Amino acid sequence: MTVKIAPSLFGADLGNLENQIKAVEDCKVEMLHIDVMDGNFVPNIAFGPDQVKMLRGKTDLFFDVHMMVVEPDRFIPRFVEAGADMITVHQEATTHLHRTLQLIKSFGIKAGVVLSPGTSIKTLEYVLDDIDMVLLMTVNPGYGGQSFIESSINKIKDLSEMIKGYNIDIQIDGGINLETAPKVVEAGANVLVAGSFTFKGDIAKNISALISAVNFK
Amino acid sequence: MTVKIAPSLFGADLGNLENQIKAVEDCKVEMLHIDVMDGNFVPNIAFGPDQVKMLRGKTDLFFDVHMMVVEPDRFIPRFVEAGADMITVHQEATTHLHRTLQLIKSFGIKAGVVLSPGTSIKTLEYVLDDIDMVLLMTVNPGYGGQSFIESSINKIKDLSEMIKGYNIDIQIDGGINLETAPKVVEAGANVLVAGSFTFKGDIAKNISALISAVNFK
Amino acid sequence: MTVKIAPSLFGADLGNLENQIKAVEDCKVEMLHIDVMDGNFVPNIAFGPDQVKMLRGKTDLFFDVHMMVVEPDRFIPRFVEAGADMITVHQEATTHLHRTLQLIKSFGIKAGVVLSPGTSIKTLEYVLDDIDMVLLMTVNPGYGGQSFIESSINKIKDLSEMIKGYNIDIQIDGGINLETAPKVVEAGANVLVAGSFTFKGDIAKNISALISAVNFK
Amino acid sequence: MTVKIAPSLFGADLGNLENQIKAVEDCKVEMLHIDVMDGNFVPNIAFGPDQVKMLRGKTDLFFDVHMMVVEPDRFIPRFVEAGADMITVHQEATTHLHRTLQLIKSFGIKAGVVLSPGTSIKTLEYVLDDIDMVLLMTVNPGYGGQSFIESSINKIKDLSEMIKGYNIDIQIDGGINLETAPKVVEAGANVLVAGSFTFKGDIAKNISALISAVNFK
Amino acid sequence: MTVKIAPSLFGADLGNLENQIKAVEDCKVEMLHIDVMDGNFVPNIAFGPDQVKMLRGKTDLFFDVHMMVVEPDRFIPRFVEAGADMITVHQEATTHLHRTLQLIKSFGIKAGVVLSPGTSIKTLEYVLDDIDMVLLMTVNPGYGGQSFIESSINKIKDLSEMIKGYNIDIQIDGGINLETAPKVVEAGANVLVAGSFTFKGDIAKNISALISAVNFK
Amino acid sequence: MTVKIAPSLFGADLGNLENQIKAVEDCKVEMLHIDVMDGNFVPNIAFGPDQVKMLRGKTDLFFDVHMMVVEPDRFIPRFVEAGADMITVHQEATTHLHRTLQLIKSFGIKAGVVLSPGTSIKTLEYVLDDIDMVLLMTVNPGYGGQSFIESSINKIKDLSEMIKGYNIDIQIDGGINLETAPKVVEAGANVLVAGSFTFKGDIAKNISALISAVNFK
Repeated sequence: MTVKIAPSLFGADLGNLENQIKAVEDCKVEMLHIDVMDGNFVPNIAFGPDQVKMLRGKTDLFFDVHMMVVEPDRFIPRFVEAGADMITVHQEATTHLHRTLQLIKSFGIKAGVVLSPGTSIKTLEYVLDDIDMVLLMTVNPGYGGQSFIESSINKIKDLSEMIKGYNIDIQIDGGINLETAPKVVEAGANVLVAGSFTFKGDIAKNISALISAVNFK
Repeated sequence: MTVKIAPSLFGADLGNLENQIKAVEDCKVEMLHIDVMDGNFVPNIAFGPDQVKMLRGKTDLFFDVHMMVVEPDRFIPRFVEAGADMITVHQEATTHLHRTLQLIKSFGIKAGVVLSPGTSIKTLEYVLDDIDMVLLMTVNPGYGGQSFIESSINKIKDLSEMIKGYNIDIQIDGGINLETAPKVVEAGANVLVAGSFTFKGDIAKNISALISAVNFK
Repeated sequence: MTVKIAPSLFGADLGNLENQIKAVEDCKVEMLHIDVMDGNFVPNIAFGPDQVKMLRGKTDLFFDVHMMVVEPDRFIPRFVEAGADMITVHQEATTHLHRTLQLIKSFGIKAGVVLSPGTSIKTLEYVLDDIDMVLLMTVNPGYGGQSFIESSINKIKDLSEMIKGYNIDIQIDGGINLETAPKVVEAGANVLVAGSFTFKGDIAKNISALISAVNFK
Repeated sequence: MTVKIAPSLFGADLGNLENQIKAVEDCKVEMLHIDVMDGNFVPNIAFGPDQVKMLRGKTDLFFDVHMMVVEPDRFIPRFVEAGADMITVHQEATTHLHRTLQLIKSFGIKAGVVLSPGTSIKTLEYVLDDIDMVLLMTVNPGYGGQSFIESSINKIKDLSEMIKGYNIDIQIDGGINLETAPKVVEAGANVLVAGSFTFKGDIAKNISALISAVNFK
Repeated sequence: MTVKIAPSLFGADLGNLENQIKAVEDCKVEMLHIDVMDGNFVPNIAFGPDQVKMLRGKTDLFFDVHMMVVEPDRFIPRFVEAGADMITVHQEATTHLHRTLQLIKSFGIKAGVVLSPGTSIKTLEYVLDDIDMVLLMTVNPGYGGQSFIESSINKIKDLSEMIKGYNIDIQIDGGINLETAPKVVEAGANVLVAGSFTFKGDIAKNISALISAVNFK
Repeated sequence: MTVKIAPSLFGADLGNLENQIKAVEDCKVEMLHIDVMDGNFVPNIAFGPDQVKMLRGKTDLFFDVHMMVVEPDRFIPRFVEAGADMITVHQEATTHLHRTLQLIKSFGIKAGVVLSPGTSIKTLEYVLDDIDMVLLMTVNPGYGGQSFIESSINKIKDLSEMIKGYNIDIQIDGGINLETAPKVVEAGANVLVAGSFTFKGDIAKNISALISAVNFK
């Protein structure tokens, strides 16, 4: 299984997003991770539909939109229209998780669920038929540059066990670097979000190092 | 009285903000208007503290941060730290308007209040001692490119009357162009936010045209 | 000026709405008043879009939908589609009153604002260009059969004065009967909602008595 | 075990509820299912306490009140007073599920919990002593006429296993018809809500067909 | 007109409330001011119904309960039962101010409205018939020991003018001491809340000094 | 293993807290349990940071602060500053449980999670590394003097099993007396909160009786 890399825009130079996205395009990455924050689900604000739409005009990269937004149904149509290829929503942010996933799917794009560090994977038991990806947060959502929560390794293993037989990706977001990446892949993850790691210094070199670190066999 | 121009970042090319801000810097503008949207007070999401901080690193322009955010007190310290020179908050978004203004002032920066189109100016009667500016929205907040609400002219006149004797600016945001700008100035406004108008086409030319249109005497 | 009568469905026999509406149709009334309650803005629940739609299939009466609903924008398209001819929203239930009125008007139907007994008419100063009617509650919204609040008479007079020159109806809802009706009309009201009064006993006789009581000249 | 049928009023002719209820009374059904919607827990509004009270005056049918209401405790006393014989509340709509169930029980009526399609049955582990019924939604709550979610069959089986030894009914609501009914009964359900199915066409015939379909042995 | 003094329990020694209340009883004060804070309307938590009830068992002082609580209707019956003689609620904390006042009055006790520093007195225009007192906050509610907001003097004068002809007390809370007290009385206030001032040092001496300072003629 | 006793201040004489706390100090108890209630998470209001701070000045007892508060993060720094030695938060009251625990720990004090009677212990699976204690409520939170929920015994056993190998205390709150205490200890609990039981009558005798009842071997 090949591990996929998802550079996170939140780690990029926010004054030159067009350039940054071009730099990412030249690397072998499968998707661009876009953090949407509403100041209510998380204590930060970032990236709305207008910015996604603008980026859509500049690149054909697969857009993986991570909605850190309360009651995401209100904004899902806007992000689809802006060019999202996949939308992931927090289990903790929606009362009707199944309905929200149906709404995303109704637009013909991919859907996923995100779990914050403390949330049980049992909450996903009855939506496994409806998702393409689970994103496990390995830091608390809302800021870049935090340290990886070590106990997440067991959670990845548990999830990996739980989704056996399903065609569901396991994405990891938070504190991913050359040291943590191999561990989460070892535990069962196959999509890695990398923000600060990707954009500090030479983007191509960083991504290439990350790919080498995780595709070890 | 000289009319001040406040280009609004929300109308700029979001993929090249650094360039856009440099272009604005070269013009004779008094401030940069930054729209913060939380997806709850308004049905849109845009510009958080990280983006403001990044821009702060690139320019010395006066940052006029317009918070379209529910319970703005939670985020005021973050925007101050990010480099805001003035923060305006919506009367409709805060239960304790006086406390919120005190909080902004406590950081040594300027403070203002924003009123959406339907809100009475009577709501400001007992905070006039505490503000440097009133922003009257002449469209409903949340989107760029809407049409100016004509009945706002009377509201500007009423406000102008009400603040006589105070040292308070009247800022107008929404549908400002070469046709509406002279009217609002005539009615008493002295700071004009211009988003779509500023950034469509030649920025320098647009701003210069706007300045000419309003400084008629 | 002719006073218009608006029987309120909430006072009708809820088990036989089709019959009740037919009985109303035979009388000389200008509109049917429909109370929508969401259990949050008011401590009661009643009449959703499905019921309005069903009634629409049975009658051509003008539907005056009174939304006692928090954030009414979420439901306005549904009630328009269900057949509303006018929608009135509470000033106290919406953060962006002007936007909400624009939304109603965008569907080509009439729009109004409702004020609960304690709310100042000053809150309407900057939406007078955008409304066809003001509904003054003369009981607190949420229940049928309450007593008329006497001090409302002055509020009606104040409003009547305030809207001079505008083409805006003044509707009264709460405790309307043969005794209170002439008083509110005298004070300036021209549309009367009558629930319990209309449907207790002989509908035609009740409405006819009310019409006689208020069209005294 | 006999399977019980619960016609849902939401599928009935809303203009003639008294007639519709009489038609149901003549059939062999164990209860009438009444959907209460507050426009907040679900995106629809329907059936408040006044309507339940009116219906109570017309029939002795067992009233099974399904509260799709945020913080149901506020309304439970009102529905009890209006004539509810059982109240079911959503696990997702109440912070203190055990307290809410205690409140219902304190009035001497039956109590149940409803789970939306995505919600884990693990959430019920510590209230099994306190409930008479679990309602599993097999569509997302809020509208009539939706299609049965196939993956619900496993959830019914899991629940059936979990409540072994308890005297708890398993009720199913959503997309029940002659094809889906036998499947859910096979999986362990013993109370079927049928709305659109019951009231489209000949009520007696529909109910009778449903009874035949599920009481196969 | 005699000015009344209302010592505020929030300034007392919270470990010895019984003693403190006895000390107050011995002075010539008309009421005990009790600050209820819910952590939501104000950023502090203090004094619930159980504490009021306990104090009720120790003294016959008139209890003036100042509810800094969102949606106060939920708690009004509890505070009445606990022994409140008057309840004041914030205009900013209740959607249905008139209904809330009716609720308080329905228990046969006195009712008042509180305005935070920034709130217009226009919001009270249509409840003047229903209140016994207006409390003007001269600091932002939530903490003891803040400084008096000087611009409040004009607000007191405006209110004094507005309620002419009504039998309504004007109470002032915030920063009251020997210097500010005469000014607010001069402007029209006749009930003074004093917390820190009362309980720092000798209670009897403090109250007596305050009485002397304001009953100057 | 020695069972620890945690007298709950909410059961004490609220008019003489200093005395009551001195009485407790003289007994062999490990901590003082302080119930903070915000009127929103629970239908009661009690004990804010100012009261905790005052008590801190009077005693060196270990302060175990039980926050029955929505979004506790807002108040955690205040209670730490006031002198809390441990803070427990409700799983049901916080969206980001892991972040909340990190926040408490960042101040160098102990952290715990509280579960209301109906909440599954599965919700704690991924925070076991981050907590010092789990508090299982054996009555619904908000009032003193309620009866112990018998089915809690199994929940204690399940939790006891789940945390094997971790250094986590199991605290029980609700209906603890000489009859229930040995049962919960038998099931696995090792910290007992006792409010009404402690403070009715002779405090020293009550606590001593409780200690005897549970340290049976």
